[in-house]
Amino acid sequence: MGSLILHEDSRSGNCYKIRLTAAHLGIKLERKNYDILKGETRTAEFLRDISGNGRIPVLQDGDRYLPESNAICFYLANGSKLIPDGHYDQADMLHWMFWEQYNHEPNIATLRLWKCMIGIDALSDAQRIQMTGKRENGLAALDLMDKHLAKRKWFVADQFSLADICLFAYTHVADEADFDLEAYPEIIHWMERIVTMPEHVGLDD
Amino acid sequence: MGSLILHEDSRSGNCYKIRLTAAHLGIKLERKNYDILKGETRTAEFLRDISGNGRIPVLQDGDRYLPESNAICFYLANGSKLIPDGHYDQADMLHWMFWEQYNHEPNIATLRLWKCMIGIDALSDAQRIQMTGKRENGLAALDLMDKHLAKRKWFVADQFSLADICLFAYTHVADEADFDLEAYPEIIHWMERIVTMPEHVGLDD
Repeated sequence: MGSLILHEDSRSGNCYKIRLTAAHLGIKLERKNYDILKGETRTAEFLRDISGNGRIPVLQDGDRYLPESNAICFYLANGSKLIPDGHYDQADMLHWMFWEQYNHEPNIATLRLWKCMIGIDALSDAQRIQMTGKRENGLAALDLMDKHLAKRKWFVADQFSLADICLFAYTHVADEADFDLEAYPEIIHWMERIVTMPEHVGLDD
Repeated sequence: MGSLILHEDSRSGNCYKIRLTAAHLGIKLERKNYDILKGETRTAEFLRDISGNGRIPVLQDGDRYLPESNAICFYLANGSKLIPDGHYDQADMLHWMFWEQYNHEPNIATLRLWKCMIGIDALSDAQRIQMTGKRENGLAALDLMDKHLAKRKWFVADQFSLADICLFAYTHVADEADFDLEAYPEIIHWMERIVTMPEHVGLDD
């Protein structure tokens, strides 16, 4: 890896995952900020030079541009202590990371975006009608996490891994989308274990 | 790996990915079918014994149960020719696999499910109002794929990989959701390359 530039919106949990992964690995990232609400990732320049998908985060490594938050975390952590040994445990870690992007982020992160950044009054009808379903799915995601953590300290392989980092990013701010985290004691204890690690950095750090 | 059982709905592209990966690797899978439309993955037994997330596919390897289609493909292919060497190329492959689950599958696969399996007349208001957005996002996904393939034969690292398999699964049936694949000549050529490989199996094989 050469010098690394993280193209990000600093409020995004998907971007925070990468900063948290880098902090645990002692990797230095230059940061370049874009305001997603102002369409700064949909400009012709961004689409041409940074990512044709028009989304952050994107990690720039020299002249290469890597999108997708969880893939970026994998890139930074490949071969490190943040990815368990063994094919099954590696796949199990990826299972939680894919689950996060399919079952957790589109519900909890989207409700947070709509409430705290866009504002409920500014939502379209198509967005507003999805709020109930997203809340139910978000509650189901937190419930599944709480049950899983009742029997173990970390998500995979009895060790802190990218699965924990990627799930922590939007879980620890779920209260901003009106999810009551106090209802999930195992998640609370797991988050305490994460934030007290010496390498930890917060979303606003 | 021991003897492997794929818990699936054989109509699902997410399950097909795994059979296609296994075919390319010469891995034998036992198959157990569930009808997702009849709620067979939401029974108390399924949630307790197979997956608390209530979805297929799940790969059973002895007494271990691995969910999430793309994580299962990674498990089967870890260390094989279907995953490129090098940390950047591995992350780039995962980038397309995460992109598939976030930008492609929730649009193209969901519209196929709604049209061909559930039926448009049976959709809820919340589903029906999302159809326009999902069509726009599905078109954008196909457009991005076509542009990417204009400069290369395979998605990543100049070699056939899991990125191609995972993107092929729902792309090749996008016409069932009324996407006109003839509008994407690069995708057509890429699909021809895939289906003429000697190891290839179809969704209905």
